Amino acid sequence: MPHIQLPKDLQGIRSAMAFRPETAKPLNELAEALLHAPNSLPQADRELIATYVSYLNDCYFCQTVHGAIAAACLNDDHDLVKRVKADFQAAEISDKLKALLVIAAKVQKGGKNVTSDDVQAARAQGATDTEIHDAVLISAAFCMYNRYVDGLDTWQPREESLYRERGKKTAREGYVEMSKEYLPRQL
Amino acid sequence: MPHIQLPKDLQGIRSAMAFRPETAKPLNELAEALLHAPNSLPQADRELIATYVSYLNDCYFCQTVHGAIAAACLNDDHDLVKRVKADFQAAEISDKLKALLVIAAKVQKGGKNVTSDDVQAARAQGATDTEIHDAVLISAAFCMYNRYVDGLDTWQPREESLYRERGKKTAREGYVEMSKEYLPRQL
Repeated sequence: MPHIQLPKDLQGIRSAMAFRPETAKPLNELAEALLHAPNSLPQADRELIATYVSYLNDCYFCQTVHGAIAAACLNDDHDLVKRVKADFQAAEISDKLKALLVIAAKVQKGGKNVTSDDVQAARAQGATDTEIHDAVLISAAFCMYNRYVDGLDTWQPREESLYRERGKKTAREGYVEMSKEYLPRQL
Repeated sequence: MPHIQLPKDLQGIRSAMAFRPETAKPLNELAEALLHAPNSLPQADRELIATYVSYLNDCYFCQTVHGAIAAACLNDDHDLVKRVKADFQAAEISDKLKALLVIAAKVQKGGKNVTSDDVQAARAQGATDTEIHDAVLISAAFCMYNRYVDGLDTWQPREESLYRERGKKTAREGYVEMSKEYLPRQL
């Protein structure tokens, strides 16, 4: 049961956001800017970084939601998402994304773990400064979202199918649009 | 030297925000909503939570900036800020803030560490659901800001005096207003 009284019909971060719309607004806008806005990094790559960091933080809700969104961007290849979580170095993803996942995994443990060598390795695979910046901030942001979702002990039903349909819609419409389902209209 | 090419005249998170204004906007709005907007939790208490979590994450920039803002809210009592960092249970702060700092410290390690007993202890000291929510989200958010600042290896000069004047101004004017110093006007 959640630690505070959250709306009962909403899952995970949606219940926390509906409880506190003032903070939900920038939280959704940050996800939109990082994961959904136009970017030289493919949407699937950004969602895979979010999924992988949420997996490292052992957050069921976020890894399942963002895994579903990543799969929706990858012609429903849910197996690839699972292989990235299990061993991304062996998965069929670009070497650039592998180098960015190395950085994201360091940031998950703490920002000071990132080395110049990690950054040079990403540059050698063609990563730009903005892409390196975004990999760092996506990882940092999911260290927040994951703690928020689990720190309030939100309701996280374990039926993956629940997350798949919503993942497809979020992949298409983005976070700000989806937040209209549970946030008051005037925000 | 920062891992990517950041504006050279700006310190810490300000350099990263100037580099990427699209994400700076929601990042500043989140800090504004959590730390500066009207709230039943005093501004000093919220800044002390931010300072303490940044100290636990060993982020020099954030603990010094938010420590300076907290001190500005506490009649310049910089010693009290230091005592909170060293041993908040022995510091002259309210029992409610102590209970919220216990929750914040658990969230810093990972959201699942928060127990019903921790939440009950905060309620017994008069904490409302919104105050418990905000303590969780402030801690989670600083697990992001700290990783962002250190993950890019931003410039963090070690002269505390640099941070004190800006801390007073931020305590008064807030995060969104201060961001106008380094963000393009059209945002």
